[in-house]
Amino acid sequence: MKINVVESVLKANDAVAAANRRLLADRQLLAVNLMSAPGSGKTTLLEKTIPALGGEYPCGVLVGDLQTTRDAERLGPLAIETTQINTVTGCHLSATQVAEALAGFPLDDLAFLFIENVGNMVCPAQFDLGEHVKAVLLSVPEGDDKVGKYPTLFQQADVILLTKTDLLDILDYDLARVREDLSRVNTRAPLLQTSSKTGQGLDAWLDWLKEQRRARLNIRA
Amino acid sequence: MKINVVESVLKANDAVAAANRRLLADRQLLAVNLMSAPGSGKTTLLEKTIPALGGEYPCGVLVGDLQTTRDAERLGPLAIETTQINTVTGCHLSATQVAEALAGFPLDDLAFLFIENVGNMVCPAQFDLGEHVKAVLLSVPEGDDKVGKYPTLFQQADVILLTKTDLLDILDYDLARVREDLSRVNTRAPLLQTSSKTGQGLDAWLDWLKEQRRARLNIRA
Repeated sequence: MKINVVESVLKANDAVAAANRRLLADRQLLAVNLMSAPGSGKTTLLEKTIPALGGEYPCGVLVGDLQTTRDAERLGPLAIETTQINTVTGCHLSATQVAEALAGFPLDDLAFLFIENVGNMVCPAQFDLGEHVKAVLLSVPEGDDKVGKYPTLFQQADVILLTKTDLLDILDYDLARVREDLSRVNTRAPLLQTSSKTGQGLDAWLDWLKEQRRARLNIRA
Repeated sequence: MKINVVESVLKANDAVAAANRRLLADRQLLAVNLMSAPGSGKTTLLEKTIPALGGEYPCGVLVGDLQTTRDAERLGPLAIETTQINTVTGCHLSATQVAEALAGFPLDDLAFLFIENVGNMVCPAQFDLGEHVKAVLLSVPEGDDKVGKYPTLFQQADVILLTKTDLLDILDYDLARVREDLSRVNTRAPLLQTSSKTGQGLDAWLDWLKEQRRARLNIRA
């Protein structure tokens, strides 16, 4: 009984997600679902990314969080449009929440839509939001064992950003172990080393985003 | 419809949790549910805690994780008994999983049972496992905004451990903000500053554990 209910919830979610994806692609708007543990640097990454994409690539942002509008307050001044979705006790965003938020968005004016999911390495991996690409963040202080421990999330990633790499020298971090775990679950996604403090990797991330937008939405340069 | 199913799941879980709690209390065994984001240091804390409690307070451990037995392998040599519960895609432990694991435990030989929950700041907060106390870990590199963003978890905590405090001087961390957020959601739980690297706070944590065992289980010294 319970499994049936959950399955129908997932199916309904997937139908809405597919509609979101078409709606956004029709506007040449690439949607990026950012997923990670709490505190791995999703908001800080967007604080650097949105101004760097600049006027040529205007950005919209949806921010999922249980409570508070803290992330939206940080990103509001940088993006064309920002909406905070409070899930209260919900552990992930759903495609319907995204669809409802997009109803008020100036979609024709945007090149990228960043969807910052609820900080959680488990549940968001099960819910398609209608994104075109999934970016998974993994911060150095979380430890080098997380790819093996949360494989479902990392399997789906189109890109993996190792964040806070400025702490690599301070912490006892085994990058080879991360690569070894990734070689088992995902050999497709590039692993970008980034630090919002030093700026490392920001250019590679921006290039990756622009290339994905061209390739996935069939946009000619 | 969906709400009814979820409610009955929660009710069934609570009944099993209550039975777990009685079973353990009858053996003078204090159960501690450890919850936090991934990578905030639950396993490392237990690696320090179990040997420090020593022969006077033998420990058992249940470790929840999606996949891998990495945490159990680290704790196995230290505890009297260790069981890894793999949840596969499940985002939290349940009381039934704990009950099943305890069936094989030498309960009469133990003073503490540590239950290391799945790394997740949302879902574990909704499932009583039959613990006597809840310990919530918050690591410095996760940022100083997490209490406000995940209030449901912090509301329930009986103790909050700020971990990796050796990074306080390196990172731009506002401890006053954490205290201010806590003053709104939980004024009952002590906030212990800890570092498994320097040993800071370990004695306070051990004292807290022993005092809780005496007080909650009515054990005379």
